[in-house]
Amino acid sequence: MTLFSSRFGERPGGAREVAGSVTAPAGFRAAGLAAGLKKSGKLDLGLLVSDLPCTSAALYTPNAAAAAPILVCRQESQPGRIQGVVANSGSANACTGEAGLEDARAMVRQAAGACGLEPAKMAVASTGVIGVPLDMQLAARGIAAAADSLAADGGDSFAAAIRTTDSIDKQGAIELELSLGKVRIGFCAKGAGMIAPSMATMLAFVTTDAGAPGGLLKEMLAAVAAASFNSISVDGDMSTNDCLFLLANGASGISLEPGSDDAGVFAAALAAVCKDLALKMVADGEGATRVVELNIAGAATAAEAARVARAISNSPLVRTAFYGGDPNWGRLMASAGAALAGEPALPADVYYEEVCLAAAGAEAAGPIDAGRLAAIMAQEEICVKLDLHRGAAGHTMYFSDLTHEYVTINSEYTT
Amino acid sequence: MTLFSSRFGERPGGAREVAGSVTAPAGFRAAGLAAGLKKSGKLDLGLLVSDLPCTSAALYTPNAAAAAPILVCRQESQPGRIQGVVANSGSANACTGEAGLEDARAMVRQAAGACGLEPAKMAVASTGVIGVPLDMQLAARGIAAAADSLAADGGDSFAAAIRTTDSIDKQGAIELELSLGKVRIGFCAKGAGMIAPSMATMLAFVTTDAGAPGGLLKEMLAAVAAASFNSISVDGDMSTNDCLFLLANGASGISLEPGSDDAGVFAAALAAVCKDLALKMVADGEGATRVVELNIAGAATAAEAARVARAISNSPLVRTAFYGGDPNWGRLMASAGAALAGEPALPADVYYEEVCLAAAGAEAAGPIDAGRLAAIMAQEEICVKLDLHRGAAGHTMYFSDLTHEYVTINSEYTT
Repeated sequence: MTLFSSRFGERPGGAREVAGSVTAPAGFRAAGLAAGLKKSGKLDLGLLVSDLPCTSAALYTPNAAAAAPILVCRQESQPGRIQGVVANSGSANACTGEAGLEDARAMVRQAAGACGLEPAKMAVASTGVIGVPLDMQLAARGIAAAADSLAADGGDSFAAAIRTTDSIDKQGAIELELSLGKVRIGFCAKGAGMIAPSMATMLAFVTTDAGAPGGLLKEMLAAVAAASFNSISVDGDMSTNDCLFLLANGASGISLEPGSDDAGVFAAALAAVCKDLALKMVADGEGATRVVELNIAGAATAAEAARVARAISNSPLVRTAFYGGDPNWGRLMASAGAALAGEPALPADVYYEEVCLAAAGAEAAGPIDAGRLAAIMAQEEICVKLDLHRGAAGHTMYFSDLTHEYVTINSEYTT
Repeated sequence: MTLFSSRFGERPGGAREVAGSVTAPAGFRAAGLAAGLKKSGKLDLGLLVSDLPCTSAALYTPNAAAAAPILVCRQESQPGRIQGVVANSGSANACTGEAGLEDARAMVRQAAGACGLEPAKMAVASTGVIGVPLDMQLAARGIAAAADSLAADGGDSFAAAIRTTDSIDKQGAIELELSLGKVRIGFCAKGAGMIAPSMATMLAFVTTDAGAPGGLLKEMLAAVAAASFNSISVDGDMSTNDCLFLLANGASGISLEPGSDDAGVFAAALAAVCKDLALKMVADGEGATRVVELNIAGAATAAEAARVARAISNSPLVRTAFYGGDPNWGRLMASAGAALAGEPALPADVYYEEVCLAAAGAEAAGPIDAGRLAAIMAQEEICVKLDLHRGAAGHTMYFSDLTHEYVTINSEYTT
């Protein structure tokens, strides 16, 4: 996987890429294997654990139909002390009732037992088809085997075990030069469909051998999620299973103090890493051929900017136009107008990259360089800006185009 | 066109179908012709006028990027005295700024002049590509020619002139037996894409030779719109140009008194007609192969029921599943849960027709008749129900599936 290759992301300062993924930081081991939960025979069960106690932070989907593993994590794990995660693909264990909760608890119990941890320190995450019970015999056998094969180079297998319709790898690791020495951050994620701006349909795991107070981790994670996973849309569908974990075990001997320069550098690197994962999710959005960065400027409030950004990002008409390479700014205006229904006429400007296509709500005066516009629309990453001229607030979102392949994937595949 | 053929609609009591469409009621004349606004050479300009003064009611899109014709109608016409409409397809005259407003005003002026009406009694409606100025030379020539060819059997041509990507006819007329005698209702509409539940992307025109106070028409129109045009979704995109007109000229000599039995029969017939047009819009939704009636029951409030219904109706995952014939109730639950984000776990039941697939939030116990379920999913009209078990409020919506053809139409056609 090429890290930080999107023009919309940033390479974190003072960082170099290193091999491995979630197991690149010292003291983490992982495993991934095929437990038989996926009919395809692909990897479908993963275990990630730190040999040292961790501080941690986690974010979960607010979906009212949240899956059993989300409910179990939220209610039964120690949010600031998670030290391991058992994860599976093939079944989301969502909409599975009491039996599903029992299954999620059993996964936690079995994984914790096999790793010698208290259950409250083991999290569980699932992704796959909704409404189908997990085969717990297969899962239990898989968990035992995974615990036996935990390895310091198991990050890649773990990352593979959480994928469903993902077509590209979303993992990596960096080494960060802090004033006190070196720390590492490892990361992997899954997500290609059911991606909406209130936590993408995703599982994401970030590990580090830096130490940090749980409160600092929580604060950093909320901030980076807002600018990454919560600012992307593939299809506007919010998942039942979204979760994002950050585990810090302090194995590097370096501890991050709130407010310190090192904490700032670390937070910036974490933000860059999460944004890179989020952009990869959009680029790998089911059937996607393009990623659009949408900048809403000149909104009256931040909430209004976000509402307009979300409406445009989720519009099938806007998204099919990008698929067709059609610079159809009128569809963006119509979506923005729908999000602002009842408000007075919208004197918005629309830019595709540096080219102004609409000014004050109407087609821009003067000739447009058709060649330049065609070149813009042929890009895999397109930057679009709407200035609403209603105030000073803004919001940025990333979305993918809506393609024949999206329809094929989602009409033929049961998720 | 077959009227009232959907099982989700109702044939109005005491009504029989008659030939003609908006010109079936006495005293209305219309014309439709090819003015050259559509490159295809198809009909693109229509004129509809009553020989007698009318009372009227109209509803317009609340879109903040509302098109010039909407703004001109809203600000410059006499809402209760509209007697004629000039309409065009090929250009929406939306996002066209001051020049667009001038063009819409010119259309009104020219049409009113040619028909001998005050401009405030002539409405204007446009549909087609957003952001492209109207060719006013072509439009002016078309308006003059249309005025010359106004005819009592011109309803069909008028209906044809407002279509864009529509593939089926949406027009008709009925004769209604009231206690005082017979009145007629004629109707036509346009709408296939950019259909969202706050007025579909549509132009719709209803004429009658009944007489009625403007206030009664307004009241009836608002009520029927809520249960028809405002309860459908093809792609969740709200248009810049939606409008619905009801013109009553009293040529039958029969006048509807508010609160009378006749007014009740008329209102019921109007509701049936509008629902039939709305269902046809969904069935003709761009690329649609299926219509789903979605009943949300057991919501805490009507607003909550509508929110859940809208979320499910607009979900690409739900809509592709119906395209694939996949009874994927988990996607409905995930969408409902997203609409209820932050609320406690959702103990919803899900029915596809009479078959219960989920109970209390999880897969229904007991075997499901796979043959029956396959037969249900093969229908062109499928009825689905979610009982949220949170209260007593409900909401019904109609939506189409999301297909390859939708993507083809909207990635290759500039609207």
